[in-house]
Parts: sequence; structure tokens; C-alpha cells
Amino acid sequence: MRILKVTLSYRGTRYHGFQRQENAHTVQEEVERCLSQILGGPHTLHGCSRTDTGVHALEFVFHVPTESRIPLLGFQRGMNKLLPLDISVLNCEEADPDFHARFSCVGKEYLYRIHNRESKDPFTEDFALHVRSPIQDGLLRKAAEDFLGTHDFSAFCASGSNKKDHVRTIYRFDLERHGEKLDILVRGDGFLYHMVRIMVGTLLEINEGKIPPDGIPEILASQDRLRAGRTARACGLYLKSVFYRREDLLRWDVPALG
Amino acid sequence: MRILKVTLSYRGTRYHGFQRQENAHTVQEEVERCLSQILGGPHTLHGCSRTDTGVHALEFVFHVPTESRIPLLGFQRGMNKLLPLDISVLNCEEADPDFHARFSCVGKEYLYRIHNRESKDPFTEDFALHVRSPIQDGLLRKAAEDFLGTHDFSAFCASGSNKKDHVRTIYRFDLERHGEKLDILVRGDGFLYHMVRIMVGTLLEINEGKIPPDGIPEILASQDRLRAGRTARACGLYLKSVFYRREDLLRWDVPALG
Repeated sequence: MRILKVTLSYRGTRYHGFQRQENAHTVQEEVERCLSQILGGPHTLHGCSRTDTGVHALEFVFHVPTESRIPLLGFQRGMNKLLPLDISVLNCEEADPDFHARFSCVGKEYLYRIHNRESKDPFTEDFALHVRSPIQDGLLRKAAEDFLGTHDFSAFCASGSNKKDHVRTIYRFDLERHGEKLDILVRGDGFLYHMVRIMVGTLLEINEGKIPPDGIPEILASQDRLRAGRTARACGLYLKSVFYRREDLLRWDVPALG
Repeated sequence: MRILKVTLSYRGTRYHGFQRQENAHTVQEEVERCLSQILGGPHTLHGCSRTDTGVHALEFVFHVPTESRIPLLGFQRGMNKLLPLDISVLNCEEADPDFHARFSCVGKEYLYRIHNRESKDPFTEDFALHVRSPIQDGLLRKAAEDFLGTHDFSAFCASGSNKKDHVRTIYRFDLERHGEKLDILVRGDGFLYHMVRIMVGTLLEINEGKIPPDGIPEILASQDRLRAGRTARACGLYLKSVFYRREDLLRWDVPALG
């Protein structure tokens, strides 16, 4: 039995998230349909995480056990021929027998992209959040430092989460400005339901003066979802990196998405 | 009578080009529908050029004469509320009475974007040409120098052009590499039907070894469309800048699209 470790990229706009659901179109459904054709017979994949409706992935990892002897490049090319244009296989390699896309994962990085200018941009409507009022990068960069480290993130978790333990560690929280684009990069050992989107929504409310710039520690301490800001729209969110080695998790010299 | 000079940006994917046509959905039709609502009564706009089906515009200029006294920012915001998400008004100003979006134009710059890597990219399917085989930037940059200057571009003009004079001047032809993205920037005093797309197709055939790297002067001299390369797909092409002052046409220190 081989374990194939596959890296995907997808545009989430047309999908109800990654994970297979009854009566909803998902990325997993499309990928498994193609896996059956390429590997022969029904195959079930194991994804590194769920993603919400409309959320994108620059890098999403799944694994699939298979008896097929197909060469790796043949697998990649065959999948890319069959998959719809908004899902792409970036890489495929053979993994150790005990590799598991979800349980072996030690951390993830998300990108939240904001397009910050007066007029909307016809090219980024599904790919970024349009914010008309000027964003004070410096103010928000400073405020966001309070997210770093290990905290109980209950105040930044939407109801509907099935996770008991709400303690997570954030290793990186950067704001990178590229002209009209503002990229927010958040890296941690794990994320709760809507956590990145609520963090971004809270920063936007700090920008709007609705939450004080030094308000984050108090919100964290309250463990109260109602104290944090709104949930920023899904269209700006990308799963950017999935980490399987702790040393990769603590290193970031790579420039953000171009 | 005021002359409003309006700068648009649009994603061309859903449209049969800019110019109004019977029985086809065009950008002009959408914009004029909104102009009538914002300015009151039917209004006809004058665009700076036509664009083909699927071609995008980062900057497209039109003018419209009107009796309306609407403030400029009110016009922009009102239009952006009414327009579909893939068309955006970037700017609106009052122009001299003799300004004409097409006849006052002294030059244009186009961007052709290539995504150069093994696997397709779900985020750029409509926004770039996917080229799998490695592109030799240096070779093509050198070859493209032969496009610079004043030439008869008949060999780079699709049949169906209604222009008599095929002599044009190219001021800039640059290849800019940003990781997997290759941006080709072409600036000239005017362009023939499909001219940029045939120039790019010719460079791609030089990359593939089908046309010799020093073949461009001979193709130009032949004035024979069959000697040049194929027409590269519309999805990679963007109208990038429209020039109304000769001094702007001869200056480029601005970085390309991010």
C-alpha cells in the first residue's frame, strides 16, 4: 500500500468548503471523483483541515492510500486534466506509511488579503476583501502583536465549533503592504472555527475606532465572542501553508503571495 | 455642456469586448445603462479603443458629454453601486471641451501576462496564459528588441482589420519576471487588430524553437501574417495605460501590475 501525499491549490468561490457534505458541492467531492478515475476504483482522501465556503487554498494537503503503481508525475498531470479549472494539483509525493495529512500536521499559515482603496477592483472581487476607508497599517500591526504567543482563543471562535480545547499558539502575525493590497499573515499551531476571520474583523474594528488599539488582551481574557469584532468575509482568506516539520513552522523568510 | 473623462477597469471574461454590438453582451452596454440612470436620460459614451472578447482593462478611458451637474465623486460612487462587480470606475474628471477619448489618445500600453509553471493555477485561469514549458526570458527579451521603433506591422495584423496604414511605433517592449509570472509590456503609438497577441505568439514560437531568435526583422519585412507566430489567447491581455500627453508616453519608471 502506498501513501500519496498530494498538495492542491483551489479557488474556493464555487464550493461549499473542502469537506464532503450531503447536498452541497465541495472540493473533496471533485477531487475524489478524479482520484477514482486515475487510481481505479473508489478512493477516500484525508484532508489536512476543513475550509469554509468561499475560502481559498494556496496549499492544501491531503493523503490517500492506494494500491495503484501510477508514477507521481503521471498522477499529477492526469488529475490536472480531469479536475475543474479552479482546482489544481501542485505536487504529489510518496509519504511514510504513518503519514496522516491531518494528524501529522504541526501548524498552518493563513493569508487574509484586503484591497484597500476607494473603488472596487474587478479583478479581486472573489479574492480579497474590499475596504474603502484607509487602513492604518502601523496601528494594526502594533495591536496585532497581542495575538502572538499562547492564549485561550475562545473569544475568537464562532459558535458551532466542536473543539473542547481553545488554547492555541500564534507564532507569526504580520501585516504586509503592497500598494493597495494589505496581506495579513497568521501562523499558528492550530486554528478554531472562524478564528482568523474574527481576528481580522477585530483589527478592522480597531481601524474604525470601535475597539481600542490596546483592546486585544482584554478581549482574549474575557473568552467572550461578543467582545471581539465581526467575522471578516470568507473571500479574502487563503490557507497558505501546511507544516509537517516543527523547524519549518518557526522560520519565515519567504515573501508573501505575489 | 460638460465633458466627463472617465477611467474604468474591467475583467473582460464575461464580455464580447468593449464596443456595443447587436446580440452580444459588451462592457459599453453595461456602462451606458448605468450612465443613463446616473446622468438622467440616454447618454452615448466614446471609448478610447475596442477590446476583444475576454481581454481585460486595468485602465480604459471614455468620455461622455452631459448636461448633468453631478459632483465627480458622486458620479464615481453612484456608477460603482450600479455596475456589475467586474467593471469599476477608477476615476472621473472634467475634461476640456475638445477632449476625445479616442482621437486625443497618443499611445497605449498593453500587458500580456504568462503563468509559467508545470501545473495550472486555479487563481489565474482567466487572467493569464498558462505555459508549461520553461520560458527563456533572456532569449525572448533580446529577440523582442527587434519590435522597437517604427515598422510596418502588417505581418502582425489579423485579417479583418479595417485600418489602411499599418505603420506603428513601439516605444517599449519589456519582459518582467516575477517568480512564475512573466509580464510582457508593450507600449506604442497605436496597435493593429490582434497585434500584441500575435507578437506574444511569435515570441512563444521562438521559445519553442519554431521561429529563429533573430527572425523578427525578416517577418516584419515580409508583411506576411503567415510568417508570424500564432495569436496568443485573449485571457492574458490587459489594456494597461492610455496616454494623452506625449511626455507620459516616453517615460516609464512605474513598476508593473502587482
